[in-house]
Amino acid sequence: LDAIGDSWSLLIVRDALEGLTRFSQFQNSLGVAKNILSSRLKNLVKHGVFEIVRNGSKRGEYVLTEKGRALFPLIVALRQWGEGFFFAPGEQHVSLVDRQLRLPVRKLSLRSEDGRELRPEDTEIVRPERKVVGSKSEIGSLSRSRRRPYTSSRTA
Amino acid sequence: LDAIGDSWSLLIVRDALEGLTRFSQFQNSLGVAKNILSSRLKNLVKHGVFEIVRNGSKRGEYVLTEKGRALFPLIVALRQWGEGFFFAPGEQHVSLVDRQLRLPVRKLSLRSEDGRELRPEDTEIVRPERKVVGSKSEIGSLSRSRRRPYTSSRTA
Repeated sequence: LDAIGDSWSLLIVRDALEGLTRFSQFQNSLGVAKNILSSRLKNLVKHGVFEIVRNGSKRGEYVLTEKGRALFPLIVALRQWGEGFFFAPGEQHVSLVDRQLRLPVRKLSLRSEDGRELRPEDTEIVRPERKVVGSKSEIGSLSRSRRRPYTSSRTA
Repeated sequence: LDAIGDSWSLLIVRDALEGLTRFSQFQNSLGVAKNILSSRLKNLVKHGVFEIVRNGSKRGEYVLTEKGRALFPLIVALRQWGEGFFFAPGEQHVSLVDRQLRLPVRKLSLRSEDGRELRPEDTEIVRPERKVVGSKSEIGSLSRSRRRPYTSSRTA
């Protein structure tokens, strides 16, 4: 979260996923002070989200690494959350479309291994089991969560 | 982004999606100073991510609203990004499982309307068209993006 737990950093990555690579492009897009943009880009490079690519004598370009590109679902999730809650019904806003069909992308949804759509309460965090003599795990090497989401179904 | 563009806020929402509701629970889970937790919760309530539910004389509980619960894909995306890049291969870490199958959930992926998996360069941002006399849109009311991601396929 050090890498991206900041609004500007998320917006920079969003712009980079749209194809921006230059300091001046990010600055124009975001309208952010140079010193803030500079410190955020430096931090993103430090965390391996961007790498600086220099072609000849030109200024460096900020190119997303594999780790940076892997933020795509997160940025899309943020965008879709915004679309869902920050616009009045029918209000026009930017839209993420598939370039082939020219239609809006599907809403991200979390799926189980067998394809069911999962709500928060359909999921659970399991923590790696510590080696304890005599302990038995219910699902192989993963122990049940200490927490129960939403319902007290521990009795079930 | 004002609502959630901050590490603590994201961690609070993450914990709430696992079922935590009380100030003391968030404090124990996150190990964060009371004044910081208090200001972040206040901000999240202000932005409609949480509502405070009071049952009789007990202290209020922080319950996610529909808007707050809709952050689930974003939190999962953040989690999966972390799993992918912050652990050595084979290193044990917490895991999000489907409670029915007791198997890890699928990785979030963005899909087109017809179900193809989409990479960043397969997508494009389109902006609402401004009404201009004589203008024609290529895809109904949405105009093409000014930006081209990654490739200069404008010539295609």
